[in-house]
Amino acid sequence: MTEVAATRRSRITPEREAELYGAVLDLLREVGYDALTMDAVAARTRSSKATLYRQWGGKAELVAKAVRHNKQPGGLGLEEIDTGSLKGDLHTLTMRSDDCEMEQNSALMRGLAMAIHGNPELLQAFRDHLIEPEMAQFRKVLQRAIDRGEVRADNPAIEFVMHMMIGGFAARTLIDEKPPTQDFLISYIDAVVLPALGVTAG
Amino acid sequence: MTEVAATRRSRITPEREAELYGAVLDLLREVGYDALTMDAVAARTRSSKATLYRQWGGKAELVAKAVRHNKQPGGLGLEEIDTGSLKGDLHTLTMRSDDCEMEQNSALMRGLAMAIHGNPELLQAFRDHLIEPEMAQFRKVLQRAIDRGEVRADNPAIEFVMHMMIGGFAARTLIDEKPPTQDFLISYIDAVVLPALGVTAG
Repeated sequence: MTEVAATRRSRITPEREAELYGAVLDLLREVGYDALTMDAVAARTRSSKATLYRQWGGKAELVAKAVRHNKQPGGLGLEEIDTGSLKGDLHTLTMRSDDCEMEQNSALMRGLAMAIHGNPELLQAFRDHLIEPEMAQFRKVLQRAIDRGEVRADNPAIEFVMHMMIGGFAARTLIDEKPPTQDFLISYIDAVVLPALGVTAG
Repeated sequence: MTEVAATRRSRITPEREAELYGAVLDLLREVGYDALTMDAVAARTRSSKATLYRQWGGKAELVAKAVRHNKQPGGLGLEEIDTGSLKGDLHTLTMRSDDCEMEQNSALMRGLAMAIHGNPELLQAFRDHLIEPEMAQFRKVLQRAIDRGEVRADNPAIEFVMHMMIGGFAARTLIDEKPPTQDFLISYIDAVVLPALGVTAG
């Protein structure tokens, strides 16, 4: 089975595959998972539905692969962020995604929020490729803040840092009807995240 | 037109209407807005599709009405919450919804997250009936904390209280794959919300 799949997979080039995944993610942001049809993917990418089904098996698999393929531009070279303060590190992390990327990620999260429930493969792809890389970044930055003595190791807010961040990100759209922006997140970090972690402004 | 609509509306009893809206909200939680069809509503409520269309015009209007009709059990009698401390008030607010209600609201938020974008009527119903009542409660409780001198009026976290709360609520599902519970929210309030507002534990 795997060999057959590999043979089939080899029929399209990596460039074409990337293009196709990009189109799937665009559609996800525009209409969400439920309204995304194989017909729409075929039309947008000028493929035949038969090819899509042969190559990916179905919508859930195609979307999960597209999410997995999605490289966060800020995901590489994280080790370089080390400004010497938690505030500096968090600001720098935030500034790595421009407002356009943030709006795209916000739309992607919205498009997938309902679908990942009841779809374990999609949930896993979502967690592995959208949530976990972000969490890994924040854990490193926090660990350095603890090592420096800036944050107490037993501060109870530590385990909620991702809830604060992802929550602020998601709630911005729900409450303010605005996409999250760098300005919003910087203000939110300074007003909420740092004080909760016991780091005083300055 | 309005008179005709009123005549038509009167064909079903308030009890039947409430039952129908309840079924629409259940379906929204189960499958989300896009996958919710008038066929499914008709089947679940043993109505005819013709009746549904005659009465509500279409899916968007029906769902918006169902959301508007949805009474938050905690929405009444808010004035009674006044424990004398912000911590006490926030805990009491949280305890008003049991874990089952929280899971239902979380599912409803998820089911609507994608749909409210690009659907102004639905967005307005969502804001008026799910977000704004919560915000009004938190504003009152916060104002009393400011009046008592517990929170400084110029604390920059004040404007983000709903982002913290709704965010924590929404992120719980995304990050932990668990529904928000009273225990989770109480821990989150103590570790994040109160410290960000400059209220020390105790």
